[in-house]
Amino acid sequence: MKQKSRNSVDNLHETTTGATGVTTDMRVIVPLQGVVQGGGGLVLGSIIPCALFYFLQLYLKAKNPSDDVPNPSPPPQLPETPPPPPPPGGLQRVHSVRSIWSPRGTNGQVQVSTRANSVIKHPDSPYYVGLKRAFDNLYDESSNPEGIIQLGLDENKLSLDLIQDWLVTHTKCSMIGQELQMDRISTYHPFHGSSELKLTVASFMSQVMEGHVSFNPSQIVLTAGTTPALEMLAFCLADPGNAFLVPSPYFPELDRDIKWRTGVEIIPVPCRSSDNFSLHTTALHRAYNQAKKRGIKIQGSNGDKNQEFVSMAEIVNSEEYDRNRVHIVYGLSKDLSAPGLRVGVVYSFDKNVLEASKKLTRFSSVSSLNQRMLVSMLNDSRFVEGFIKINRERVEKMSDLFVGGLKSLGIECMKSGGGFYCWADLSGFIRPYSEKGELELWEKLLNVGKVNSTPGSSCHCVEPGWFRFCFTNLEEKEIPLVMERIKRVL
Amino acid sequence: MKQKSRNSVDNLHETTTGATGVTTDMRVIVPLQGVVQGGGGLVLGSIIPCALFYFLQLYLKAKNPSDDVPNPSPPPQLPETPPPPPPPGGLQRVHSVRSIWSPRGTNGQVQVSTRANSVIKHPDSPYYVGLKRAFDNLYDESSNPEGIIQLGLDENKLSLDLIQDWLVTHTKCSMIGQELQMDRISTYHPFHGSSELKLTVASFMSQVMEGHVSFNPSQIVLTAGTTPALEMLAFCLADPGNAFLVPSPYFPELDRDIKWRTGVEIIPVPCRSSDNFSLHTTALHRAYNQAKKRGIKIQGSNGDKNQEFVSMAEIVNSEEYDRNRVHIVYGLSKDLSAPGLRVGVVYSFDKNVLEASKKLTRFSSVSSLNQRMLVSMLNDSRFVEGFIKINRERVEKMSDLFVGGLKSLGIECMKSGGGFYCWADLSGFIRPYSEKGELELWEKLLNVGKVNSTPGSSCHCVEPGWFRFCFTNLEEKEIPLVMERIKRVL
Repeated sequence: MKQKSRNSVDNLHETTTGATGVTTDMRVIVPLQGVVQGGGGLVLGSIIPCALFYFLQLYLKAKNPSDDVPNPSPPPQLPETPPPPPPPGGLQRVHSVRSIWSPRGTNGQVQVSTRANSVIKHPDSPYYVGLKRAFDNLYDESSNPEGIIQLGLDENKLSLDLIQDWLVTHTKCSMIGQELQMDRISTYHPFHGSSELKLTVASFMSQVMEGHVSFNPSQIVLTAGTTPALEMLAFCLADPGNAFLVPSPYFPELDRDIKWRTGVEIIPVPCRSSDNFSLHTTALHRAYNQAKKRGIKIQGSNGDKNQEFVSMAEIVNSEEYDRNRVHIVYGLSKDLSAPGLRVGVVYSFDKNVLEASKKLTRFSSVSSLNQRMLVSMLNDSRFVEGFIKINRERVEKMSDLFVGGLKSLGIECMKSGGGFYCWADLSGFIRPYSEKGELELWEKLLNVGKVNSTPGSSCHCVEPGWFRFCFTNLEEKEIPLVMERIKRVL
Repeated sequence: MKQKSRNSVDNLHETTTGATGVTTDMRVIVPLQGVVQGGGGLVLGSIIPCALFYFLQLYLKAKNPSDDVPNPSPPPQLPETPPPPPPPGGLQRVHSVRSIWSPRGTNGQVQVSTRANSVIKHPDSPYYVGLKRAFDNLYDESSNPEGIIQLGLDENKLSLDLIQDWLVTHTKCSMIGQELQMDRISTYHPFHGSSELKLTVASFMSQVMEGHVSFNPSQIVLTAGTTPALEMLAFCLADPGNAFLVPSPYFPELDRDIKWRTGVEIIPVPCRSSDNFSLHTTALHRAYNQAKKRGIKIQGSNGDKNQEFVSMAEIVNSEEYDRNRVHIVYGLSKDLSAPGLRVGVVYSFDKNVLEASKKLTRFSSVSSLNQRMLVSMLNDSRFVEGFIKINRERVEKMSDLFVGGLKSLGIECMKSGGGFYCWADLSGFIRPYSEKGELELWEKLLNVGKVNSTPGSSCHCVEPGWFRFCFTNLEEKEIPLVMERIKRVL
């Protein structure tokens, strides 16, 4: 499946400018999201589900792929693979993310939003200059007596011993007593995460990906959860009124997470069950052209999420393509089953995105208590290995049982290799065959069957009758009851 | 000092509309900030320094207070106090926040920003409706067998036992072992904070205020630090391009904290040393009119921060005034000396502000680990009492020593009853008497004296030569060294 669709690539044209430049050309960013339909685990070749989003900035030439007009710019050099046969129905399938990716050859900087630029360019006042200078050469009576005395920082160290004593006395907690010393957890720290935790998270991400990919800790920005990480990235890549093209169905909260404060729109690019809900360049171009007609500037397209994405890891590590256009959002919530801990990651190759993100983490930083605990836990590699293995086995088993249960009711699910949920086709059970029928079935499942699911329309799925069932909240013994309740409704 | 300035009140006219209404009248919000010059501790009658910001929404009639044109609207009924004598130099001093506050009589709803309104009005999709319905009536085998089975939540409970075991085995931490059960800390929880922590924080805030004020936990929204709390409130109260009037000098980070993502401007209202840096209505009106001429809509004014603010607590609890216009931002960072824990509070009387804020906490929520630890610690009232008392004594002692040390060098500080820093007058030591001279002295202190301070210009102080020195980072024995280094430069 390493075929390339030359047709679609020919119509993708790079018009990037420097970070400071302004271009009137159309720009597309493809945030590749691997969450809906339990496909998260597939993204980087791992069966462990994970909240991974890829934001891939492309530069689309505003030209329909079905046009026969020759492309005035020379086609980018591609690896020597034959073009695929024309697909039935005239649709051009994106067979790999490579095919919608333009090769290297830019100045190495991607274009960030006007707002992100103003964040990056905001001059540090003497307040910040002084803080930094003092931190870099801090006075210490014995080790650095000629260092700078810090009187610029509004911080109180006078009574930390009291808090420390309370923790030691009341919790008998060796971790807090030793690793979580109050002078390390309760004072100001880098908002974008300690270098220790970044190192640990990079190694954990690599471990989750079974070593297929390595992550550079210096490209990591930590934030208080995946939601703020997504918002931060949207803020960095697009201005208000700009839009991301996102293949649907997608994560039900994505619209408001992205739009509420950034003003950035989401335009769904419909994918269909006949294609295993994978992305077609035709649909991408159509959505792009429609947005263009409405005067909306496209800043991104949340990309494909099918099995092909196993190749993302290779592409990111390949020298052949412009890595500055890939921005990854990752959350520990899935792989560590701990959304309550609020740890998200922005991983980018672009220094502007990293610089703006680091500055913006002041609005959403990971607490030092969590950082210390996670460093301690994730550095225990035997524990992490065991956890990943056992958790994977449990999720797989539950998935098999649940999907099998649905099958016995005559309900088929999309083929999926991981994830906390399945994506089930109940289109045969809805009347009328429309969103209305779908919502009526959802209501019946909820009110009569007493089972809460997510209707596909909440995920912007264009085909009515698809439902998302998360099964990792269940215990095994509850599956027969769930099936009985669903059956009662159908 | 309970005098009211009738003149200034006469010129404040309420034009509030409902939350959904649109008004073309000028609106003013006064965020009352008690941080610069160590005045935080004074704000609510406590000597304990705390990061408290009050956002007070006023509705200013666009009329200069010095105009003699009769006000067409009847003056609001005021308590029977004689008007103060005209101050020297024609300036009208705001003697109490009451004097710039309009009385009750509105429809009880303040106007929130267009953006906050769209957040409030955003209809919940079936995804959220279902989640909530299931949570409200959750299936449990024994206690609620007819309850709803939750298949809508993308959460994995299958391996929480592994994490729990690790914590128990590796940390021997009774708090984590008992109170911090993984099924409580690692799963999704209300983004705006647990009701337990809200109760605890309300009681702690009251304790810090020595019982002069009580706080209602249902009016509390918790967020990951004071910085996101301020940004969230700015987002709720103002639209991009609107502005807050903020008496200067103020907190050095405030401009970028407010503006970067919200697009809301800060317009400094200059205060002067001759008035102990307190706010005059004349300056407020001047700034307001200048902004109006520039076409900027004023949504707020970050208010007074002088000794008078002891009365804020009473006013908030008084029936006489419209409490819906007071919005408080509080941070545990100061009172608990623990900014690393990232816990901030938005406290509001207005249901729209609370509703929008609660929804926005998804971008910046407090981690469940911190929540559990803080509930445990802050509920230990003997510890809290002791901490507040001892910490206060230490801060006071350090303040006396530091201010005394500066005095021996011929440097006077503003009178202050608390806070982690002092606000010192070095205007006699700068050449030229300008921002340039001030910055040269700051650089000399940093490079030659090896002492980092904050120049007043970083706090938007209009008078050159003022410096902020934070002394709570020091140990007592270091004070002579600091003084020697400062002396070397002067």
